[in-house]
Amino acid sequence: MKKKFKKVNAAILIIGNEILSGRTQDKNTIFITNWLNSKCGISVNEVRIIPDIEKTIVKNIRDLSKKFHYVFTTGGIGPTHDDITAYSISKAFKVKYEYQKDAYKILENYYGKKNFNEGRKKMAKMPKGAKLILNPSSAAPGFIIKNVLSFPGVPSILNSMIDNSKKYLMEGSKILSKTLNLYTVESNISKELGKLQKKYKKFIDIGSYPFFRLGKIGVSVVMRSDSQRNLTKANKDLVKLVNKLKIKTLNI
Amino acid sequence: MKKKFKKVNAAILIIGNEILSGRTQDKNTIFITNWLNSKCGISVNEVRIIPDIEKTIVKNIRDLSKKFHYVFTTGGIGPTHDDITAYSISKAFKVKYEYQKDAYKILENYYGKKNFNEGRKKMAKMPKGAKLILNPSSAAPGFIIKNVLSFPGVPSILNSMIDNSKKYLMEGSKILSKTLNLYTVESNISKELGKLQKKYKKFIDIGSYPFFRLGKIGVSVVMRSDSQRNLTKANKDLVKLVNKLKIKTLNI
Repeated sequence: MKKKFKKVNAAILIIGNEILSGRTQDKNTIFITNWLNSKCGISVNEVRIIPDIEKTIVKNIRDLSKKFHYVFTTGGIGPTHDDITAYSISKAFKVKYEYQKDAYKILENYYGKKNFNEGRKKMAKMPKGAKLILNPSSAAPGFIIKNVLSFPGVPSILNSMIDNSKKYLMEGSKILSKTLNLYTVESNISKELGKLQKKYKKFIDIGSYPFFRLGKIGVSVVMRSDSQRNLTKANKDLVKLVNKLKIKTLNI
Repeated sequence: MKKKFKKVNAAILIIGNEILSGRTQDKNTIFITNWLNSKCGISVNEVRIIPDIEKTIVKNIRDLSKKFHYVFTTGGIGPTHDDITAYSISKAFKVKYEYQKDAYKILENYYGKKNFNEGRKKMAKMPKGAKLILNPSSAAPGFIIKNVLSFPGVPSILNSMIDNSKKYLMEGSKILSKTLNLYTVESNISKELGKLQKKYKKFIDIGSYPFFRLGKIGVSVVMRSDSQRNLTKANKDLVKLVNKLKIKTLNI
């Protein structure tokens, strides 16, 4: 990975009618997000799910690549007519859509010259200047062009290759988090929690999420920050607050 | 539901840091999408997941409410400081953020006057002019203002109340689909499938999705259309094609 920047962010662009039609549950968002957080210190700031429509892909690539350090796309880089991600990214960046030599070799070698048909060849076509993200499970590589990284939509294949994209990324500062599970309801702590958030406005993000577990209801308070010192400080305040309100907890 | 329109579309706006941080798997997209498809004939054309940041919510509400017939938001309508959806929607539409009288009564009645604290009262604050989407499981209502419908983020609660939003929606023509599971790989059928898509360009969307099942690999070909006649016709062509290529199927 390249040299460290303080805050590095990314967007995820899930491309595929099958997610929007309700046929398929998206599993790539949570996987990529966790990988970026834990392995690269990169925060995902926006996710979009869009259909396999050229002008929609082009517009979203242009928008998101301007707004974020990186854009991770999933889906649409296979051999069929509805796989138009690589073509659309070429169009978004106004570069040629052509055979990437190394990808062509990898695929020709994998399938054998005889079986290297039109559909398979299509998977070697990429935006001019693309570098490869190698795929150890089914050969067809992903790619990076400018700040856009493209992966296949099948989760098991994506998961197997994502580590191969790390060398192209800047590392950001890791986001640390601390969770406290409280046996209470949100409205009993909302006022005090709001004050705590105000106090640590610049350093900590405090989130509050109801849970239902083993027949009991409660609230998970999640604090996130890139500063361990501030996180420890805010957590002490939270524990004090919880004791004052006489709320039982699960993990202190 | 109101009178029928041919094609009715929607966007989903998932609001919540917990999805973007990878802490929580989003389950609302697939539920809302399937509900809209099957119960209302409404297609979801875009999904966005964004953080609990006021200006981000405002911008997305403005963008999406212009582009689509409906916008469904989830998350951020609870009692805590990070619940800023109702406030942000008020700002997006430049209307007051104030107590919705019916919501106030429902919540006061549910909690009792004594326990109706600040956090709980907050859940009755909505954009001026909002109409309620009743919540049978935990009282706090969702709402609709213009073409934006707001729901809580907790899936079980959202699921229990979504039927109560149906009366506010126009019904679209149902999207029908037909799936054929083939024991082949995508690149063996990509050329012919592309031709088929071209033939039915205006009427049918053909998608192709690899599957791995019981140790076998295959491809699901999914055809979607609002015309049963065209779907039947295209399916006959697909079956012919599959027979010509001597591909085994799972369900013909």
